[in-house]
Amino acid sequence: MGSPFDVTVAEMRRRTSLKWHTYPDDVLPAFVAEMDVQPLDAVVSAVTGAMLAGDTGYEAGPTSPRGTAYAEAFAGFAARQHGWDVPVERTRMVPDVMLGIVEVVGAVSAPGDRVVINPPVYPPFRAFLEHAGREVVTAPLTAQGRLDLDALAAAFADASVYLLCHPHNPTGTLHTADELRAVGELAARHGVRVVADEIHAPLTVGDEAFVPTTTVIPDAIALHSASKAFNLAGLKAALAVPGPAADDLARLPEIVGHGVSHVASIAHQAAYDHGDAWLDKVRAAVRSRADLVERTLADRLPQARWDRPAATYFAWLDVRDTPAVVSSGADPARLLLQRGRLAVNSGPTFGAGGEGHVRLNLATSTEILTDALDRLTTTLAAPG
Amino acid sequence: MGSPFDVTVAEMRRRTSLKWHTYPDDVLPAFVAEMDVQPLDAVVSAVTGAMLAGDTGYEAGPTSPRGTAYAEAFAGFAARQHGWDVPVERTRMVPDVMLGIVEVVGAVSAPGDRVVINPPVYPPFRAFLEHAGREVVTAPLTAQGRLDLDALAAAFADASVYLLCHPHNPTGTLHTADELRAVGELAARHGVRVVADEIHAPLTVGDEAFVPTTTVIPDAIALHSASKAFNLAGLKAALAVPGPAADDLARLPEIVGHGVSHVASIAHQAAYDHGDAWLDKVRAAVRSRADLVERTLADRLPQARWDRPAATYFAWLDVRDTPAVVSSGADPARLLLQRGRLAVNSGPTFGAGGEGHVRLNLATSTEILTDALDRLTTTLAAPG
Repeated sequence: MGSPFDVTVAEMRRRTSLKWHTYPDDVLPAFVAEMDVQPLDAVVSAVTGAMLAGDTGYEAGPTSPRGTAYAEAFAGFAARQHGWDVPVERTRMVPDVMLGIVEVVGAVSAPGDRVVINPPVYPPFRAFLEHAGREVVTAPLTAQGRLDLDALAAAFADASVYLLCHPHNPTGTLHTADELRAVGELAARHGVRVVADEIHAPLTVGDEAFVPTTTVIPDAIALHSASKAFNLAGLKAALAVPGPAADDLARLPEIVGHGVSHVASIAHQAAYDHGDAWLDKVRAAVRSRADLVERTLADRLPQARWDRPAATYFAWLDVRDTPAVVSSGADPARLLLQRGRLAVNSGPTFGAGGEGHVRLNLATSTEILTDALDRLTTTLAAPG
Repeated sequence: MGSPFDVTVAEMRRRTSLKWHTYPDDVLPAFVAEMDVQPLDAVVSAVTGAMLAGDTGYEAGPTSPRGTAYAEAFAGFAARQHGWDVPVERTRMVPDVMLGIVEVVGAVSAPGDRVVINPPVYPPFRAFLEHAGREVVTAPLTAQGRLDLDALAAAFADASVYLLCHPHNPTGTLHTADELRAVGELAARHGVRVVADEIHAPLTVGDEAFVPTTTVIPDAIALHSASKAFNLAGLKAALAVPGPAADDLARLPEIVGHGVSHVASIAHQAAYDHGDAWLDKVRAAVRSRADLVERTLADRLPQARWDRPAATYFAWLDVRDTPAVVSSGADPARLLLQRGRLAVNSGPTFGAGGEGHVRLNLATSTEILTDALDRLTTTLAAPG
């Protein structure tokens, strides 16, 4: 097998999910976090087998002998990938990462409490937290895309929870063990609980390793899922993993697991059990796509600035100084959609620090990314 | 093809979902709402096709041209099955029925508000509502398993929302148009909003038709899903359907749809589009299982009382006067598990009116149900 990204536009357009069906056909989509990827055979087989067997009932609950099957598969994967000893018996399944975050935040805070986030960050963080009756407080990343400890200290003074994005979306930043340690000390000093969205953890694409938050901050709680790294957003399931000093998950009512899709759990287990080699290919391909972005921007759009992602399959591009943005003053994502017929995520939707940026999805074939970069550079290099 | 319930215990034990993996192998499970059923071919094909195509991304949102695909499939089904004209453009997708109920209740009431339910009723109603910060008020069904308008009037005096179970689980009651009309008048008088869980609507198994709540109560909101009738609890998706005078769904934030599994949506669409004949066989088989229960109880456990379900695949059995229950005073579900090695749902978990009852799952083969009835009648007919 070649690259899992050996796909064609025609194949992609036959898919029925959001990425290829939000815009008209002349728009090339490079926005939402779906990969243009061939599926992992083991996942296809596992789901097909479950369907043929009619194995489409409820996910077994925590008291069932099968209730830890997902956690065990994740623990094996996490041990191999991250050297992490996951406390299987203390985990809890949740319907998906965001619904799990809402449950965990609900368990460690009260309505009206403040939750800290680091913009620019995944836009649903704010939307879900506010919908859950929490007040969102921001501690923006530094200009270098790192955690800003001074901003965090100020925000923590008044807050109950810190929702950490690790690896950080959209910047692709991996927080270091030292950073996490400093965060943990700050949080402990202010009585702030750390909840970490670690859905991008398997997608390390540089030289740095992912450091699980709960291995550094003992009362943190992390959310994991195979949905991002294995392109299974359409089959929802996730796992809440507590640090050694976090006892909160035991207080979650049994119904918190009702929303889990059993067939999704089967798919994720297959991915965790059999996906390492496929994932290696995906990571290598994302690295080569980042090379392509680097070369193309240097050649054709030198005004664009970016840092290669340490993780995720996103390029977070600062294009505020490109000719089209300078001359129009417009949101670059709107320029790209209208003039270049390229759909990227708009920087300002990620909050403060997102102005003049776009998030470009690298998880596609070289051909499709080349087309996207042609549209991007041509549009933004042209003044007026 | 014969009955979709032509299955063996050996096949069932190879499934990995909750029903067959909660108790030891010598226990026959007849509890949770999973069917021992061969899957609908169209669903298997649709999901298998999606997996092979890697069509596992996000469900398209409400603004996408494909954002109403699920609602359109449901509308076709509802027109054929219930003669119901579903307002496709005003529906909203939600992750599953219970999470949808929480969202809808959240949209029409405030934290601390009172929500009325009718015990004996599906136990997660209370658990989800309380977890969502609502106070639960009960208006028990009458001894005949019908809605009690006096009890409802008393409960409505102080409440914001009425969570109706229609068809009613566990009794299998279909509320009549007259009952719904009276409920609607009462609710309007007290400013109570009606939210209806209609997940069992396709499973009518008597002579009465299902009357959609929103066709009688214009500001009601109903929740539907293919997950119950087509045994797809393991592939979660659902639809909130507003009555003509209910404008609340438009206020739900966009993120409410994020938890929907796209592959589940594909499965449900296939069921709605191609499942009518399969569903007819399921309903006919459930009717014949109810005949078997009727004959068996009349022969072997005449002290048991029950009414055949008008809908659902449950037998709600009043066994308080059976010899074993009379002499032991124990919860019959516990007696059945301990002495008969039969797992049924315990009546008291459904709330007031559940004492001395068990809920028996009829959605299985004649052989398995015969075994279950042997265990049930033998255990409960034996005193002491």
